[in-house]
Amino acid sequence: MLQSKLFSKTRRESPKDDVSKNASILIRAGFINKEMAGVYSFLPLGLRTLNKIIQIIREEMDALGGQELLMSALQEKETWEASDRWDDDVVDVWFKTKLKNNTEIGLATTHEEPLTKLLTEHIHSYRDLPTLVYQFQTKFRNELRAKGGLLRTREFIMKDLYSFCRDKEEHGKVYESLKKAYVKIFERVGLGDITYLTFASGGSFSPYSHEFQTVTLAGEDNIYVDEGKRIAVNAEVLKDEVLSDLGLKKEDLIPKKAIEVGNIFTLGTRFSEALGLVYADEAGVKKPVFMGSYGIGPARLMGTIIEALGSDNEMIWPENVAPFRVHLINLGNDKNAKEQTLKIYKTLTDKGVEVLCDDRDGATAGEKFGDADLIGIPLRVVVSEKSISSGGVEFVDRRDGKVSIISAKEAVEKLK
Amino acid sequence: MLQSKLFSKTRRESPKDDVSKNASILIRAGFINKEMAGVYSFLPLGLRTLNKIIQIIREEMDALGGQELLMSALQEKETWEASDRWDDDVVDVWFKTKLKNNTEIGLATTHEEPLTKLLTEHIHSYRDLPTLVYQFQTKFRNELRAKGGLLRTREFIMKDLYSFCRDKEEHGKVYESLKKAYVKIFERVGLGDITYLTFASGGSFSPYSHEFQTVTLAGEDNIYVDEGKRIAVNAEVLKDEVLSDLGLKKEDLIPKKAIEVGNIFTLGTRFSEALGLVYADEAGVKKPVFMGSYGIGPARLMGTIIEALGSDNEMIWPENVAPFRVHLINLGNDKNAKEQTLKIYKTLTDKGVEVLCDDRDGATAGEKFGDADLIGIPLRVVVSEKSISSGGVEFVDRRDGKVSIISAKEAVEKLK
Repeated sequence: MLQSKLFSKTRRESPKDDVSKNASILIRAGFINKEMAGVYSFLPLGLRTLNKIIQIIREEMDALGGQELLMSALQEKETWEASDRWDDDVVDVWFKTKLKNNTEIGLATTHEEPLTKLLTEHIHSYRDLPTLVYQFQTKFRNELRAKGGLLRTREFIMKDLYSFCRDKEEHGKVYESLKKAYVKIFERVGLGDITYLTFASGGSFSPYSHEFQTVTLAGEDNIYVDEGKRIAVNAEVLKDEVLSDLGLKKEDLIPKKAIEVGNIFTLGTRFSEALGLVYADEAGVKKPVFMGSYGIGPARLMGTIIEALGSDNEMIWPENVAPFRVHLINLGNDKNAKEQTLKIYKTLTDKGVEVLCDDRDGATAGEKFGDADLIGIPLRVVVSEKSISSGGVEFVDRRDGKVSIISAKEAVEKLK
Repeated sequence: MLQSKLFSKTRRESPKDDVSKNASILIRAGFINKEMAGVYSFLPLGLRTLNKIIQIIREEMDALGGQELLMSALQEKETWEASDRWDDDVVDVWFKTKLKNNTEIGLATTHEEPLTKLLTEHIHSYRDLPTLVYQFQTKFRNELRAKGGLLRTREFIMKDLYSFCRDKEEHGKVYESLKKAYVKIFERVGLGDITYLTFASGGSFSPYSHEFQTVTLAGEDNIYVDEGKRIAVNAEVLKDEVLSDLGLKKEDLIPKKAIEVGNIFTLGTRFSEALGLVYADEAGVKKPVFMGSYGIGPARLMGTIIEALGSDNEMIWPENVAPFRVHLINLGNDKNAKEQTLKIYKTLTDKGVEVLCDDRDGATAGEKFGDADLIGIPLRVVVSEKSISSGGVEFVDRRDGKVSIISAKEAVEKLK
């Protein structure tokens, strides 16, 4: 894309009312816009990064045989009364509204109930299990205080996968496969090194749930990390019997601040019993389906990447989630350099390489580099009169700071 | 995808409370689920078709230089008061709800106001214009009566593009380019022959708006079609002076029932003046931006395709929007035929061809064909003991009913 055509402009100043690093960088870089406290829109650059994160998650869910669907935000009261989760005293983040005929309806905070109900029409036999169903769908949560930029918002896309199994044993296998898929996802988005499988409190059907926690000072959660074993324990379950159960030693654990970027949870038969989701086993005996749920918020993940990898005035996105593969920057007023830039731009885009090309005439070198530092594309190709007289283009890998002058042809080879 | 793994099941009976043909077929085929009146979820097959429609629209918007973003559903009261569209007496389809602190907020029915407000931070000069911005975003409309299945719902994804220009003249060019893009979209989704550019009532800034109307008996709108000129006039503007203005003759017009599948509208400076979106022209004079809006509801389009092309028990999707490119069906219990089927399935999917493979062991030929007729994939490859002994596979093009026995290799060649 030509930057002269991109409608979003960068800003020099941080927004006054958004103190988190992620919102500050993303707003200044023109990735997001704050609509109100806890509600953000995604501008073209931000939507590109968000969609790359979504696509990575989708590929890993599809690889497990996950079937994608898209449920509604509007929710009927009766469905949620069946599981006793309609009452505001039970679930305190409902947004509720009314149809014209005064019927009260809610905006989905999650989808266990409607999906379980839906599947009563489709799952009947053990042959229909296991089934993994997921979506990328907008949740609404009436948080008392929205905070931390993209980390805690009132409206956000969530990847929620639900698993439906015969019994605890079949569920155990599915659960393990999801655990592995989550590890892959966090590696692919560039947080693998600092994200830990973390044991947290479970429920009626399992002693623990599992969180994926990314270590960063902006984190709200307190975890205790065993670096050697690459696992962690949430402060809420840091007890002697838990450590002994997990084979961990107190002296090996280091306390860290972390952001929860994913969680996987054994639901058991709570919702299948409430909503009547049963299957007939080999002997024809009807049994409740054994369920699990597995969440990741792609925008929260985007915010976490900034918190972990960004500085106050600069961002370097991991390659897989950068809005473009390369930032091609033309400097100065030399006509030949501009022509060379546009030629490289055309060659690369023709080859399917995603390029943001800073072709702006009015901007100074300082402005262009300042903007590029904020936008955060890791690879940069600079074309100027000087670079051409030195033999081609300046190729910069911002991750290690390496700069080399190579021919335009070599640059294209490296990037395609 | 293997049909034995697909969680959605077809149904023999129409849902009792959904009388429209589109909802009946889509629910029975397992494409959608009715959550409540006017609210539907999209199951895997339905989501595939919906996403294909969305992708076609996206490609045509991108081809015009449209920049995709994603705005929020939650809306602040103040933004809409600025244009006098917050009051329920002015806009009667608002869903409204409240934050914990009792602040009233709304669910977006459309996005002129928040987008115009957002762009006040990014558009400053004539150099920033024209700009085309669009999204695929969920709208909520509190319709008194939801009806017609996917044709009029309370929650739906809408492609809404907004254009921002210097003046009426620049707007006119953009508007014409959108008109042409819309014609392409309706051609690509398979409705080109029966969709007409239709003149409807305009507003303060133009004598007409333009609708795209698809002729079908289920339509709620009355239009008058000039088949020769391939344009139509909405009944609301059927007046002598309009016909004379458009160069149409009453005797050439045929009255038809039609569904509005898209509309394009000149907004002028109504919203830019209300929200303060101004630009500096070449002389530095500040002027309000001249706007247009351009909508298509992908799910409404999906429902319209069924209304126009489906019969009561059967659907044949246009190739570009079918959930899969081919329905590969294995018949009988012959082990060799099943192996051949799975081999063809693997060959095709390895080549990137989207295949729905009916590998179900329990289902009869009648059940398989009944399901396939409902699901509606236009190309069908049937593999059975009989087809193999006749020389290969039965290749069926459901659109012209042509059936031929060809080798598996030939079938793969035709499909890849």
